[in-house]
Order: sequence, then C-alpha cells, then structure tokens
Amino acid sequence: MVVKVYGTAYASPKRVLVCLIEKGIEFEAIPVDLIKGEHRSPEYLKLQPFGALPVIEDGDYTLYESRAIIRYYAEKYKSQGTDLLGKDIEERGLVEQWLEVEAHNYHPHIYNLTLHILFASALGFPADEKIIKESEEKLAKVLDVYEERLSKSKYLAGDFFSLADLSHLPFTQYLVGPMNREHMISSRKHVSRWWTEISNRPSWKKVLQL
Amino acid sequence: MVVKVYGTAYASPKRVLVCLIEKGIEFEAIPVDLIKGEHRSPEYLKLQPFGALPVIEDGDYTLYESRAIIRYYAEKYKSQGTDLLGKDIEERGLVEQWLEVEAHNYHPHIYNLTLHILFASALGFPADEKIIKESEEKLAKVLDVYEERLSKSKYLAGDFFSLADLSHLPFTQYLVGPMNREHMISSRKHVSRWWTEISNRPSWKKVLQL
Repeated sequence: MVVKVYGTAYASPKRVLVCLIEKGIEFEAIPVDLIKGEHRSPEYLKLQPFGALPVIEDGDYTLYESRAIIRYYAEKYKSQGTDLLGKDIEERGLVEQWLEVEAHNYHPHIYNLTLHILFASALGFPADEKIIKESEEKLAKVLDVYEERLSKSKYLAGDFFSLADLSHLPFTQYLVGPMNREHMISSRKHVSRWWTEISNRPSWKKVLQL
Repeated sequence: MVVKVYGTAYASPKRVLVCLIEKGIEFEAIPVDLIKGEHRSPEYLKLQPFGALPVIEDGDYTLYESRAIIRYYAEKYKSQGTDLLGKDIEERGLVEQWLEVEAHNYHPHIYNLTLHILFASALGFPADEKIIKESEEKLAKVLDVYEERLSKSKYLAGDFFSLADLSHLPFTQYLVGPMNREHMISSRKHVSRWWTEISNRPSWKKVLQL
C-alpha cells in the first residue's frame, strides 16, 4: 500500500517523509497550496478539520498530526528499516520525552523565527523584530540544554538515532539554510556534531531533493 | 516501586497522577513551589533541565514531559488497570493524533486563558484582555471541531477512554471551575456529554481531592 502524504512542500510533512524513507515505506506526495488556501477547502477539511498539514491516507486509514504519524509508522513497522523507538520501553520513554521537548521547547521558537524571517512577506504581514529577537534568545537557551545533553549521549534519547532526532530536521534545515542562523548550531560543539550526523543521513538528503 | 511525582499542586503533573491512578500504580507526591522558584534550583534542574513540571523518579529511571510520562506508563502496564492506548496499532494511532491535537490545538489557548485569568496577578504581570479574548475565540473554534468529532464517537480517539481524553482533564477543570467558562463546554451537546463522563471518573475525582 502506497501512503499518500498531503502537503509535502512544507516542513511538518517532511517530518513524515523522512520517517517513511527511514522505514522503507513507499509514498505518494499530494500537493496542498497554503498560499492559495487549499487547506481551507471543504475537501481538505474533511481529512483534517483544523486545516493543518500533513495528513496521510493509507488505504482506508487517515491520520493527521506529523508526530502522531511518525509514531504510528515507527511502531507498525518496528522491525523494518531503521528502528526509531529504542530497544525497550525505557528507551522509548526517553524518545517520547525528547520528542515532547522538540514539540514544546524547541519548535515554538524555531517556528516563530521561520514565520517572521521567511514567510511574513509572502503571507502579507510585517515581520516582528521583537518576536525574532526573543525567539532567537529562547532558542539559544534551549540549545544550551541540548549541548549539555549531547555531551553525554550521541543522540537526544541515547546512543541511537530516533524519532526525537528526526523530528528536528525540517525546521532546523530552515534555520541553518535560508534563515542564516547556522552559527546557532556551529557555535555549540556537540549540537554541531549531532546536526552534522542527522542532516547527512541519506533519508534526509533524499527529502531535500524531492 | 512507588513512583515519585514532582509538582503535583499544578495542572500538568495532574495529567500524570490521573494516569497512574487509572493504571493502579502507587505514587508519592513531591512538592515543588513555582512561586518560590523551586523549579529553578540547581537540584531541580538536574532532574529537569528546562525547569518545567512534572518529573517522575521511578527507581533509577527519571522522565519528564507529562505526555511522555503518561505514554510510558500506559504502555509499560498495558494490561494493568484501564487500557489507555486502544486495542490495536490503528486505535493507538488515533490516540496519538488526538493527544497531539490536545497538545497543539487545545492546550495553547486554554493555557493562555489559565495564565491571564487565574495566575497573572500571583505571577506579577497584568492580565492581557486582548490575549484572553483571542484565546477564548480560538478555543471555541477548536471546541466546534470536538463537537463534530464527539457526535460520531463516544471519546476523542473512538469508543474507548484513552490518554487523549485524560490529557484534557486538568486544564479543562480550570476552565469550567475557577475561570467561569463552563458555558464553553455546556453549550456544546456532545462536548458536554463527553466532559461529564470523563470528569466523573473515580480517578479524576480522587486527583481533585489530593
């Protein structure tokens, strides 16, 4: 069964794509144009009532929220491709912890930076310099905690690559690329080593070429 | 092993407590006083480097982020107490989806309301009426989606009580109680039926009496 993934031009759906590639699952990309408002169409809202990206369709099964989708595939195909959940329930607990840290500590700040630095003019509102400055400061503090953590383990949840690392890829790519904030990563020795490792995975390179 | 839960006077740790009670797991409540800044002490930051609540200690195992902790116990003790994850991997996918909806669509607005209506003066900043109004409007739209969903299934992830429902309890209790916004729930027939069911569970009543 080929998994249909909606909205793959954007960052959150790329979280799903890199997971599917790591697990060796075939997918078909279905375009959704946010600028044209296609996420507000009645057809799309039947799939995702909040009008957000991504959604997957896998036969009769529909699922939304990128981090729910990656958990679903990592568990459903546990023994296929890269194991992204750890070898036991305690390791999985730490994967969940760092996946939540990504969602609640890392993402809000990097999302604000993305919105105000990259997308404000396309979306028709003025970039807010105060939000940019505050978000950069808050993200820097979070990265200081990451630096400490990554001085003790190879990846966030331990010495294994997991959903927690993978989940950081799409927005951090914006940060080091079009946002010109690579110094936030490269100035931190262990974060820099971690970023080099995860961003050089063949799965992520393949997503970037799509 | 008795699980130590830090910061049980506050809402996010209560998410963990109600889960432990549903699973029949013994716990010990460890106070952390946010007003006194105990979450910024060096001892606490060793347990939770972001200075947030809750943290659990279970023997040598330490875990933070409330939604990671409830996933850990729901899975570790799958066959003990209430099954909070669904009967198969597709049901668990939907539990994860609605748990993410709670975290990303529901929580930010109800958290803003909690902060500005209940805690602004205690924390020493002025309540922002604009944020209150906007958050209430956004939460109302989210509840409209819930109303539609709950007209088709008994609980959020399907016809079974799960982590997704449980996760809504602590902050929604603030909304219907001290925030005087009960009408946001009672004016929606299916949301109201759902809230009556989940808030009357013996586990939640026990948490409220702690």
